[in-house]
Amino acid sequence: MIIHKGSKRFLSKLYGKNPLFICVIGNTETAKIPGISAAGANPELTDYTPPADAEYLFYGKCRCIPGVPITPEGIPTPALITRSALKIAGIQKIVVNAGLRIPPKIPFIDVQGSPGGNIRKGKALDGRRVEEILENARTAGQILSGFADYLVIGESIAGGTTTALGVMLSMGINAEGKVSSSMPENPHDIKIRVVAEGMRKAGIKKGSCADDPVRAISCVGDPMIPAFSGIVLGAKVPVLLAGGTQMGAVLAVVKALSSIKNLCVATTRWILQDKQADLLGIIQQVGRIPVAGADIDFSSSPEGLREYERGAVKEGVGAGGAVISAILKGANMERMVRDIEREYRRLRNA
Amino acid sequence: MIIHKGSKRFLSKLYGKNPLFICVIGNTETAKIPGISAAGANPELTDYTPPADAEYLFYGKCRCIPGVPITPEGIPTPALITRSALKIAGIQKIVVNAGLRIPPKIPFIDVQGSPGGNIRKGKALDGRRVEEILENARTAGQILSGFADYLVIGESIAGGTTTALGVMLSMGINAEGKVSSSMPENPHDIKIRVVAEGMRKAGIKKGSCADDPVRAISCVGDPMIPAFSGIVLGAKVPVLLAGGTQMGAVLAVVKALSSIKNLCVATTRWILQDKQADLLGIIQQVGRIPVAGADIDFSSSPEGLREYERGAVKEGVGAGGAVISAILKGANMERMVRDIEREYRRLRNA
Repeated sequence: MIIHKGSKRFLSKLYGKNPLFICVIGNTETAKIPGISAAGANPELTDYTPPADAEYLFYGKCRCIPGVPITPEGIPTPALITRSALKIAGIQKIVVNAGLRIPPKIPFIDVQGSPGGNIRKGKALDGRRVEEILENARTAGQILSGFADYLVIGESIAGGTTTALGVMLSMGINAEGKVSSSMPENPHDIKIRVVAEGMRKAGIKKGSCADDPVRAISCVGDPMIPAFSGIVLGAKVPVLLAGGTQMGAVLAVVKALSSIKNLCVATTRWILQDKQADLLGIIQQVGRIPVAGADIDFSSSPEGLREYERGAVKEGVGAGGAVISAILKGANMERMVRDIEREYRRLRNA
Repeated sequence: MIIHKGSKRFLSKLYGKNPLFICVIGNTETAKIPGISAAGANPELTDYTPPADAEYLFYGKCRCIPGVPITPEGIPTPALITRSALKIAGIQKIVVNAGLRIPPKIPFIDVQGSPGGNIRKGKALDGRRVEEILENARTAGQILSGFADYLVIGESIAGGTTTALGVMLSMGINAEGKVSSSMPENPHDIKIRVVAEGMRKAGIKKGSCADDPVRAISCVGDPMIPAFSGIVLGAKVPVLLAGGTQMGAVLAVVKALSSIKNLCVATTRWILQDKQADLLGIIQQVGRIPVAGADIDFSSSPEGLREYERGAVKEGVGAGGAVISAILKGANMERMVRDIEREYRRLRNA
C-alpha cells in the first residue's frame, strides 16, 4: 500500500503515532499564464483553487466558489483524497495561509505572506516579505510541533510546479523537464520559457542563488515555498513533505538555510510513475532523502476519478502524504478508496 | 495557591493534564475614548497593546513597538505573568487574531474578524461579520480541541471592559459598576455613559438583546467577544475562561447560543478582591459557573510589579488562567513569581 523509495525505516518509526496535517496554501500570478495550470477551469479561477480546497477539506463543500471542486470534465480536486484519508484515520488538520488573493472561509494560520507575482517579470515577492514568511512559518512549525508526534505538510497553489522549477534552477538543481504537472500533457516548454524569462529579467543565472534561497524565491518563486520551508525548519518532530516535485524546491531551501534531517517526501504512485517528470531525479540532487508513495488505485473507480490513472492531477493538497499517514495510523486503503468514490458520487450529484 | 469559588471539583479533573493556551486579541476604537483604558500610554497606542502582548508572549520582546511592554510608570503588561507561567509549565500557546489594526509579527490564527468601531456610535461591527467570526472561531475551537486535554483561553483588547459592559447590559445582565478596570480608579461613570449613548444610538435597551447576542455585539461589543465565545462553543474539551469581568459577556453569548457546560472562569486574586468591581456578581447572573483565582502575590516584588497589589492592571492576556493551568501541571507559585521578577528586571534594564 506504500511504495518505499528508501522510506521504510523512517516510516516504521511513525506507526501508530499521532500526526497533524498542515495544508499550506497560496497564490502566484504565474498560474494565469495560458497553458501553465489545470487547477482552475480558467486562469482567473486559479485564485480560488487553494481557498476552495481548504474549505472543502474542512466542511466537505466550498464556500468561496459556488458548486463543487470538480472540473467541467468531471475530474475532482485531490482534496477529496486528503479529506477522506484524514477523516477515516481521525487525523487533525489545519490550514496555513502563505499568501492568498481570497481568504478561505475557515480559520487559518496567517504567516503574513502575500500572493506572488508573475515570475515572468522576475519579481515574485519582496525579499523582506520572503524573510518574514520564513520566520513566521518557522515559529508556526515550532508551535504546531507541540500538537502532534509528527507533521504531514501538504500544499495547494496553482502554478506551483513552474515556480518550483524557477527556485530549483536558480539554486542549481537540474529540474528542466523533471517537474510534474496536473495535466496529462506536461507543458515543460512553457514552464522552462517562463522561468528563463524571469531569471533573465531578475539578473540571475542557473545556480547563482545556490546559497541565497531568499533571492531565488523573491525572483522566481511563490509564497508557498518559504511558508512550507519555514514550517519544516521550525519543526521539532519528524515531517512528511506531502507533495510532488515542488518538494524539491522546499528541500533545496531547507538545505541552504539549515540541514536536511528527520524528514521524508510522501507522495502518490501517480507522481512516482509519471514518465513526463522525475521526482527522484530531483530529490537525489538535494541529498539522500527517503521518498514514499501512496499506492492509490482508481482504475476501477467511476470515470472522473479514473482520470487520475490517465495522468490528470496526480497530487496536491498533500493527498499522497495524507493517505500514507492514514495507513500508518491503521486505516485501510480499500476503505479509503470506497469512501472517496462515495464522496465523489455525492459531489457529482450535488 | 488557587482560590476556589466553586471550582475545586472542576479543576481537580484537570490535574496533570495537558492544556493549550489560546490568546484572543483584537481592537476596539472604544479604547481611544479619553479615560477609558490604561492599556497603552496614550489612546492611539492602544492599537499596539494586543499585538505587542502577543509578540512578547512568543519572543520575550515586542516587535511592532520599540522598547518593552512596561508603562512609563514602570508597570508591566500582564503578559509577563502569562509568559512565565506557560514557560515554566511547558504549556503550548497560540494566538487568535479576532480583528486587529496592526497584525503581530508572529504566526496567528485568523478568524477573519475586523477591528471594532467606537461603541458610542452604536455600531461596533457589522452583524454579518459577527456571525462570520463566531462561525470561524467555532471551527477553530474544534480544531484546537484536538491538540490538548483542555483549553485555556485568554484575551487582550484595550477598552474591553467597556464593550463587555455594553454586551452584558444589552443582554440583560446588571453589570453597571461591576466591570473591572486596568486602572486603580475604575472610571465606571465614563463606561456607563459610553454604553448608554451607544445603546441609545443603536436603538436597543437593557435586556432587549437577551436572545440576540449577535445584535448586542454588533451594536456595543468588540471582535474579541465573538471570537472568544466561538472558540468556547466549538471546544470539545474542558475550557478555562482566563479573564476577569469580560468573561461575563462571553458567558452570556455562549449561554444564548448554546449552553454553559464543561467550563470554569479562571482569573487572579486581584480581580476577586477588587472592591470596585464584582466578577462573581456578574457570573452568578449567567448561571452556576465555577470561578477560580490565582493567588499571585507581588507584595514583596520590585516596585512596578508591586503596583498590581495597589489595583493596577489586575488581569489580562489570560494571566490568572495561565498561572492556574501551570499550577495544575505541577508548577510552583514561588518559582513563577521569582521568574516574573527576574524577567521584570531584565525588561527594565533593557
